[in-house]
Amino acid sequence: MTRPLTRIESVIQAVRTRIGARVDGPGSRLPSVRAQAAAMGVSVSTVVEAYERLAAEGLISARAGSGFYVSGPAAPLALAEMEPRLDRAVDPLWVSRQSLETPAGHLKPGCGWMPSDWLYHDGVRRGLRRLARADAMQLVDYAGPLGLPALRQLLQRRSAALGIDAPIEQILLTESGTHAVDLLCRFLLKPGDCVLVDDPSYFNYHALLKAHQVQAIGVPYTHSGPDLEAFAQALQAHSPRLYITNSGLHNPTGAVLSASTAHRLLGLAERSELIIVEDDIFADFELQPAPRLAALDGLSRVIHVGSFSKTLSAASRCGYIAARHDWIEALTDLKLATSFGGGHLAMQLMHIALTDSGYRRHMQSVRSRLADARRHTLRKLHTLGITPWLQPEAGLFLWCQLPDGRDAAALARQCLREGIVLAPGNAFSQSQRAADYVRFNVSQCQDPRIWQVLARALR
Amino acid sequence: MTRPLTRIESVIQAVRTRIGARVDGPGSRLPSVRAQAAAMGVSVSTVVEAYERLAAEGLISARAGSGFYVSGPAAPLALAEMEPRLDRAVDPLWVSRQSLETPAGHLKPGCGWMPSDWLYHDGVRRGLRRLARADAMQLVDYAGPLGLPALRQLLQRRSAALGIDAPIEQILLTESGTHAVDLLCRFLLKPGDCVLVDDPSYFNYHALLKAHQVQAIGVPYTHSGPDLEAFAQALQAHSPRLYITNSGLHNPTGAVLSASTAHRLLGLAERSELIIVEDDIFADFELQPAPRLAALDGLSRVIHVGSFSKTLSAASRCGYIAARHDWIEALTDLKLATSFGGGHLAMQLMHIALTDSGYRRHMQSVRSRLADARRHTLRKLHTLGITPWLQPEAGLFLWCQLPDGRDAAALARQCLREGIVLAPGNAFSQSQRAADYVRFNVSQCQDPRIWQVLARALR
Repeated sequence: MTRPLTRIESVIQAVRTRIGARVDGPGSRLPSVRAQAAAMGVSVSTVVEAYERLAAEGLISARAGSGFYVSGPAAPLALAEMEPRLDRAVDPLWVSRQSLETPAGHLKPGCGWMPSDWLYHDGVRRGLRRLARADAMQLVDYAGPLGLPALRQLLQRRSAALGIDAPIEQILLTESGTHAVDLLCRFLLKPGDCVLVDDPSYFNYHALLKAHQVQAIGVPYTHSGPDLEAFAQALQAHSPRLYITNSGLHNPTGAVLSASTAHRLLGLAERSELIIVEDDIFADFELQPAPRLAALDGLSRVIHVGSFSKTLSAASRCGYIAARHDWIEALTDLKLATSFGGGHLAMQLMHIALTDSGYRRHMQSVRSRLADARRHTLRKLHTLGITPWLQPEAGLFLWCQLPDGRDAAALARQCLREGIVLAPGNAFSQSQRAADYVRFNVSQCQDPRIWQVLARALR
Repeated sequence: MTRPLTRIESVIQAVRTRIGARVDGPGSRLPSVRAQAAAMGVSVSTVVEAYERLAAEGLISARAGSGFYVSGPAAPLALAEMEPRLDRAVDPLWVSRQSLETPAGHLKPGCGWMPSDWLYHDGVRRGLRRLARADAMQLVDYAGPLGLPALRQLLQRRSAALGIDAPIEQILLTESGTHAVDLLCRFLLKPGDCVLVDDPSYFNYHALLKAHQVQAIGVPYTHSGPDLEAFAQALQAHSPRLYITNSGLHNPTGAVLSASTAHRLLGLAERSELIIVEDDIFADFELQPAPRLAALDGLSRVIHVGSFSKTLSAASRCGYIAARHDWIEALTDLKLATSFGGGHLAMQLMHIALTDSGYRRHMQSVRSRLADARRHTLRKLHTLGITPWLQPEAGLFLWCQLPDGRDAAALARQCLREGIVLAPGNAFSQSQRAADYVRFNVSQCQDPRIWQVLARALR
């Protein structure tokens, strides 16, 4: 059903058609407002509004005292915009770009987030309507240096529920979780430093650390956290400044840090003056909260970061850092220098959506949908001979081994040609020892075409 | 006039009161939903919704099968949050933090942006209402790597109007203008490099360059652009990699690059392999567009950046970089690694607001309000013996010399105690030769208290 055009839209369409057909070429003068109104049998104010909108789009432009003129032609959207790039090497950014760039219709079992109808779009919608009634200041002013106090107070309470004592003056809001980790790398690292990461770990840590020109050292991850013997050896061999890990559910494996591993890990860190960044981005997916290093440590050498891009919305992001007070002071200056007081509206939207009573119910429903999707995906993987390294209790991911030592990067390139984006193992592995592994996101594994393409590709 | 409480709000208030008065202390169990409903004469569903909202705020928490419990007490907002910091040294970040941190009621003639009712809050409001009706994908999904195509197409048209030929595949959206400059510094500089800046120039460039551990070299700014003789000498003496400047209206002086200076500057840059970042943040304030270096150069060694934080809204920001195609490719990878695909909602809001026909009228009215405010401020400054270095035709700023060589930093500290935030000259000057200069933002100079305090302080 098509809505009939308003009078203003009719004028806009008429002008567009003439420009599109080159009846009015670039630089030519449009009929005067009065002449156009007479020609189309509409009021002068209708034409004024239509011309203003066309000018706002840049299709035409006003010259003072002389009327409106057609602007130069706009180039069509570049092809590169709409086609996946098959030629790119499978580096840490491969999965990011494929997941973000692929055209509608592509399926993305390899991507790191949920389909849009699984996120909290209703809450965002309600939040936008509420913000539309807010004071001008809330709509157009910068945020304060640390970020919206009400959201920081909420984060303080949420942290307390995980046993982390983070006063609001020790919580700094950032543009996203990635921005939080990036700020910390800037603050703590210099080129050439060593940083420990889990092997496998979230591929964007590798890209981020590369951007900081530091050396990432992988420590094998077990079902209950990093392999402590390898961790101790890496401390000895490389004197790393920092260890970056997930708290709660580990990406890509879905494993969870055990209490005893957490305690021993922290002991090792204390003896080596190691700083730990604990990225808590999957907190709300957990059924039972795992131990947090920041809770054991009391925010002394552990820095807690997080965001809600995975559960609430990735279109309007907001991250946070909870850390020692003197570090937060320095990080705040660094944030001002490099991004100023950003994200005020996103912070408010996040605060409204998180304190909306629907969010808790939304996450209950997400967790139960994920449990179903996990069962479904495990069944499908089983029939293809793909073996999960672990069957996680919660979260998005299954970390799986391909049959017969098949190369995941080759498989990913092959599947991409049929419109399926996979996440091949070595994108997650610093040591490149995960060539036959693939990460599946169970929330993105609903379409039967995925399994048909995979079955064909594996044959 | 106070609106009567809804039933849900009454229950929330009753629970809050009991918690506040410590009748129900941390850890104690709330009455069951049924008991609370009976006690207050409301329905069970009313109490459920009230408890959910209190849980969402973190004041109480649910334990499965056992009801709701009072959480630990929240700390009051820290005092540091509400008091200006008088002790901080007047460094490049002094003005930023004072402007962002000062409590309501403080006056900010030194701040870099307009009062909230001068910005485009109506357009933001309309945009939020429109976004509230958008598809789920638009509300919760990441943006693509380069950012919203429709906004990039609009920026292409706006650039074309300034003579800059920037195809949309050469436009990368960023979280803000500051983020754009920061990404470019990461991409182009290594620690120890030299960078030319105008003297005076926007203070945050100094903070930003310091964060990149590069050496900033100031080149004196004249009424028609940088002093070319000094510029040539600096090229010889320091072999700088980069020159960062404003295009259009210069911050803090309001001066404008002349066509001949632009041409000769670009000639110098070509002979020295210098890259130029041209920050076009004040474009929409201009009455007549000044020459753009990017237009002369054809985006070869000049990189064009901008944002709408100063004219539209600083609460929801979006910046952009227009540059050579191969540089945009590399910058896109760097953006993904360090901030992922952020700002999707902000990009959409910006696109809606900029193509709203009201934006052009809004800016017409802002330019005329600024002209009035400039006249008013110049009169007031004259009576205090404060002399403008230049009387700009447009923009926010007046760069002014204090009488009798008075020290601006001391004056700024003195005025801050009386609730007035000034922008002292040396915050803008790499060479620290602007000790008796102050930048005034005419849009923030409406309150007569400013002139009373200044007159007293200067006596």
